[in-house]
Amino acid sequence: MGRFIDLSHKIENGMPVHSFDNKMNLYLDKNIKTHKYNNSRLEIGMHAGTHIDISSHLIDDNKIIAEIDINNFTGPGKIFDVRGKRTIKRCDFNGEIICNNDITIFCTGHSSCYYQENYFTQYPVFETEVIDLLIEKKIKILGIDSPSPDKFPYEEHIKLFKNDILILENLTNLEKILNIKEFDIFAFPLKIHAEASLVRAIAKIN
Amino acid sequence: MGRFIDLSHKIENGMPVHSFDNKMNLYLDKNIKTHKYNNSRLEIGMHAGTHIDISSHLIDDNKIIAEIDINNFTGPGKIFDVRGKRTIKRCDFNGEIICNNDITIFCTGHSSCYYQENYFTQYPVFETEVIDLLIEKKIKILGIDSPSPDKFPYEEHIKLFKNDILILENLTNLEKILNIKEFDIFAFPLKIHAEASLVRAIAKIN
Repeated sequence: MGRFIDLSHKIENGMPVHSFDNKMNLYLDKNIKTHKYNNSRLEIGMHAGTHIDISSHLIDDNKIIAEIDINNFTGPGKIFDVRGKRTIKRCDFNGEIICNNDITIFCTGHSSCYYQENYFTQYPVFETEVIDLLIEKKIKILGIDSPSPDKFPYEEHIKLFKNDILILENLTNLEKILNIKEFDIFAFPLKIHAEASLVRAIAKIN
Repeated sequence: MGRFIDLSHKIENGMPVHSFDNKMNLYLDKNIKTHKYNNSRLEIGMHAGTHIDISSHLIDDNKIIAEIDINNFTGPGKIFDVRGKRTIKRCDFNGEIICNNDITIFCTGHSSCYYQENYFTQYPVFETEVIDLLIEKKIKILGIDSPSPDKFPYEEHIKLFKNDILILENLTNLEKILNIKEFDIFAFPLKIHAEASLVRAIAKIN
């Protein structure tokens, strides 16, 4: 079966949420002492924690993540080490090796700031020429260990979406797969009627 | 990569929820017209729809699904056709072929009643001797297309949990894998601080 490495942040009370979004809440609404069973109830936006976005997050196209073919959420991964870069440029990685349908992941190191105030404000951004390369290569998913590849007005986000590239955000543990040459990514969303989904993102080492 | 078959019910308003549990709610709390982005918020118990239970659902052992090794949620699957049986007995399937660590799935056909009133009341149940066999064989997960392998006071549930067997409930589309000899199951839960998790359950045909 191969070896699996978890790339997901934990969903728990106190987890960071973007300042635009409402807070999450997780609580036991039934408990063994009173009800003879435990039942946790989760109230959360679909862009909290490790999650995957589709085009309808920013484009009024009525697409629903539940209706997207599950093959779009898994495939061979490629990872690039861009730790320390505040702007990710074309010259910062070997883009030549990216293939059609790859799940392309950038390890920026920003996940180490996940519980800090600057996580949602001071993240690294991608230059347009990098996004253009990913579009030219027709990758399947862009994966990052930060909240977004760009800032308001999110033009790179929209360009990726218009080219059918999904965005997998708030990954963690990417350092654990940096030196691994061949791996697959599983990032199956919930089958939810929404423009995004919480995801358990996993790398499978072949 | 193989071929993937989705075994999950859709998460959407109007989906059925057990009468013990509070209703779910899914709504756009930000929308493109007003806020320039869509953001769906989900309020739901972790035992709604297709989900996986761990022991702390019924046993006061403080286990948390986020802390369970992800290898416990994937592995080779075996499926048995028990459609039409109201009670699943040892003689209804070839239990000899079950191996240690299998993800053992029973297709009862009950998923066709998912949107009917009797889904949570008139489901097939497993005889104790079947549960004892699964424990003896040391399977990894019991998967079913119904809400539970047993009824109150859930003695079979508790026996499975005490033997470190997880329960994957409310599967669907099992008819699509009935005639497939070799497949793997992916049923990775959210990395959530809870006794269960919503799951996108998938079969991979090798």
